[in-house]
Amino acid sequence: MGIMGAAHDSTVIDRASERRAILGGSDITRKAATMDAATSPLLTDLYQLNMIQAYLGHGETKTAVFEFFVRRLPPRRGFLVAAGLEPALDFLENLRFSADELEWLERCGRFGADLIDYLAKFRFSGDVHAMPEGTVFFANEPILRVTAPLPEAQLVETRLTSLLHFQSLIAAKAARMVLAAPGKVLVDFGLRRAHGADAGLMAARASYIAGFAGTATVLAEKVFGIPTYGTMAHSFIQAFDSETEAFEVFARARPDNLVLLIDTYDTEAAARKVVALAPRLKAAGIRVRGVRLDSGDLVALSKSVRRILDQGGLSDVTIFASGGIDEDALAALAREQAPIDGFGIGTSLATSSDVPALDCAYKLQEYAGLARRKHSAGKSTWPGRKQVWRRYGPDGRMAGDILSLEDDAQPGEPLLQPVMRGGRRIGPRPTLEEIRAHARRELARLPEPLRRLEPAASYPVQVADALVCLSAEVDRRLARQEAQA
Amino acid sequence: MGIMGAAHDSTVIDRASERRAILGGSDITRKAATMDAATSPLLTDLYQLNMIQAYLGHGETKTAVFEFFVRRLPPRRGFLVAAGLEPALDFLENLRFSADELEWLERCGRFGADLIDYLAKFRFSGDVHAMPEGTVFFANEPILRVTAPLPEAQLVETRLTSLLHFQSLIAAKAARMVLAAPGKVLVDFGLRRAHGADAGLMAARASYIAGFAGTATVLAEKVFGIPTYGTMAHSFIQAFDSETEAFEVFARARPDNLVLLIDTYDTEAAARKVVALAPRLKAAGIRVRGVRLDSGDLVALSKSVRRILDQGGLSDVTIFASGGIDEDALAALAREQAPIDGFGIGTSLATSSDVPALDCAYKLQEYAGLARRKHSAGKSTWPGRKQVWRRYGPDGRMAGDILSLEDDAQPGEPLLQPVMRGGRRIGPRPTLEEIRAHARRELARLPEPLRRLEPAASYPVQVADALVCLSAEVDRRLARQEAQA
Repeated sequence: MGIMGAAHDSTVIDRASERRAILGGSDITRKAATMDAATSPLLTDLYQLNMIQAYLGHGETKTAVFEFFVRRLPPRRGFLVAAGLEPALDFLENLRFSADELEWLERCGRFGADLIDYLAKFRFSGDVHAMPEGTVFFANEPILRVTAPLPEAQLVETRLTSLLHFQSLIAAKAARMVLAAPGKVLVDFGLRRAHGADAGLMAARASYIAGFAGTATVLAEKVFGIPTYGTMAHSFIQAFDSETEAFEVFARARPDNLVLLIDTYDTEAAARKVVALAPRLKAAGIRVRGVRLDSGDLVALSKSVRRILDQGGLSDVTIFASGGIDEDALAALAREQAPIDGFGIGTSLATSSDVPALDCAYKLQEYAGLARRKHSAGKSTWPGRKQVWRRYGPDGRMAGDILSLEDDAQPGEPLLQPVMRGGRRIGPRPTLEEIRAHARRELARLPEPLRRLEPAASYPVQVADALVCLSAEVDRRLARQEAQA
Repeated sequence: MGIMGAAHDSTVIDRASERRAILGGSDITRKAATMDAATSPLLTDLYQLNMIQAYLGHGETKTAVFEFFVRRLPPRRGFLVAAGLEPALDFLENLRFSADELEWLERCGRFGADLIDYLAKFRFSGDVHAMPEGTVFFANEPILRVTAPLPEAQLVETRLTSLLHFQSLIAAKAARMVLAAPGKVLVDFGLRRAHGADAGLMAARASYIAGFAGTATVLAEKVFGIPTYGTMAHSFIQAFDSETEAFEVFARARPDNLVLLIDTYDTEAAARKVVALAPRLKAAGIRVRGVRLDSGDLVALSKSVRRILDQGGLSDVTIFASGGIDEDALAALAREQAPIDGFGIGTSLATSSDVPALDCAYKLQEYAGLARRKHSAGKSTWPGRKQVWRRYGPDGRMAGDILSLEDDAQPGEPLLQPVMRGGRRIGPRPTLEEIRAHARRELARLPEPLRRLEPAASYPVQVADALVCLSAEVDRRLARQEAQA
């Protein structure tokens, strides 16, 4: 049944089957192709290539302006945190089609030689304005603007959206956890349940920006320098005939920063074993630094374990908890004064489990010098190149934003800054520590009602008059053109 | 504050800062490291390396058996669909530490020379049993078993879990959509909202296995041979002075399988423009194949658009819809008899939005010839090497499963099959089409109550007596050992 797209007629399907047969026999080809997923320009939607083919054919290569924004805040989110900009700029700077990719595009027979030539020479040559990573933002506020020849700005849509969407999603989720657990050490344990390799690595980065202390993901330390944390799994305990033996073997092999997992069989009994074992380890110069709980009633268990440890002379041994924790659990544990010093947070963080996606868009706002606007039902956009201006109250907290046209100066601090010109970064690349420090300042400046898990108010974002007028003008122009057509 | 792990004391933090500084100045290093994310053995949890260090030091390298299973079905899921096995086997066959990775591990100063040597020579040498991809499965049924020296089986936990978890999650979600929309063409549009590159690519694969017709993701065609679909974005329409001009330019540039997006401004007006344009295109030998709706009331709009097209002599033009569709929307549109022929499904599919994670585990079930069991509160496991036996009723539908020890034959068909021996695949690699055909047969054999979006019954999975006895025996053995300790 032929509905859309290019690959479903029988000749194309036949070619696809041939390719499958070839791939089936070649691990190496498949592996190489999979490896490049995160940086391949073919990690895009087919319609981008279709559109670029049509743009080139019609000479539609004038300057386009696209903006990335979130249409509305999801349930229970009072604010979002911009993240993903540095990886997005890396993507733009490095976007190239390899000989293998070009050959494949040619071979699939779907595109003209003009498109293949264009892609062979492709370098992103545009300008980018963006909010710095770690900046708090709200609905309808662009966090990134691309100004580039139309086909270039179009080609980068899918991956740019993917990078900004996911990391902003996770940074916002992580920020909720940081606010719900003041003074606690929060660690990303999400790699195994994150949606794949890229997600695991980027969730470590986004949560660190938002104030997490670190991650369990080793590669995140190698790539981003994020501190890593880790202890032992239940399998380690299970592999030994007794829990005490497992503790002791582990302690002698990993004597630094020793944290023992105590919930494999009976948590309180295991805490008593730790107390009994501690003097023997101390004699060998090994100090137990902490214990980890991963199941059960964390309020009751943390209190009884704290008591057992304190009574056993181990009041300096910390308690770390993991297992199904989210920001609501963190808030509940804080209310119950559970004596837990730190948390490993996996699934809820790395998938943003209550809200696994934002209603975001990358939309054309201007082309060939004219402001543009989509007004599909429920998805209207504000046209033109925009700026976001933020004012602060006497207490230093954010007091209100104004969304305006770029050249329509408003009171407050402009949040979008030039970060790339002619396809090259402007200025030095901020370190992850600098980004993290910026996010910390931003969270400190959030109005109190927005810091709660159930935001008690919505933040005021005003639309400047000139922008409202431009929207009406774009609509009138469109109606005129349609009448003439 | 030192709670756990190895990276938080000041000397280690200092080294991490140095590395950050180095990375900050080197785009190339960062890019190379990010590219390898999906295949790097450092895409793992730190505790795996800690445990392996301890295992090696204590000679704990005897044979271990781990099984991967889902503890419980999530809300509204009557069944799951196994997926991710072929990428998981690729991962096991190709797992190697590069010189760069080994050097980094050495440089971070956290591990002994024995561990670095072990990793330098690392090849996965174990056996794997698994359910074929596309097989329907239920709670507590292992879909994959690893039998290997303990450190090997431990090292692969994180990425193996990631691959099986995410793809099974998406395959199950996609299967619900396929069942809710019989006879419709379903296409994965999820790349931009999927959680990163790996997720986008693997969601295309998992949904194709479950019965989707294809994907918009170009790379998924190149890597897996999945048919791709794609039309145009709103930006294309917006870039032209009139909608009709945009349609015509696109049609002449992409005349094959022409599908026009008609909701940018006024959907019904655009449908009339398509009718007016069609004869002119026909004269040029171009046939409009379909129109796409991406917003608004899809029931009302699809009916009025169908009427406009039919009255305009375009009854062969199909209607394709997208925009916030999930399986409930598909079922509602089917009930309302909305005349829509196919759907592009993005966020709900690629993030499994109502259930973005499964409660899955990879657990040690046997070590050194002895069955093992964890019994943390709410997380007890069935010990030993297991098999799942499936019986079918006279109607050919699945009638019930038995979970037993591997060598305890039960009535029915054994679902776990040997797929890897000594680190190498056994037998030919199934093609994606074969896997897809298997999934289609599996869905056809699902009992009727489980095929509904709100499953009307739960599927019977019985635990064989010998397995119940073994569990009790393991508990008694453990109690004895603890008493002696």
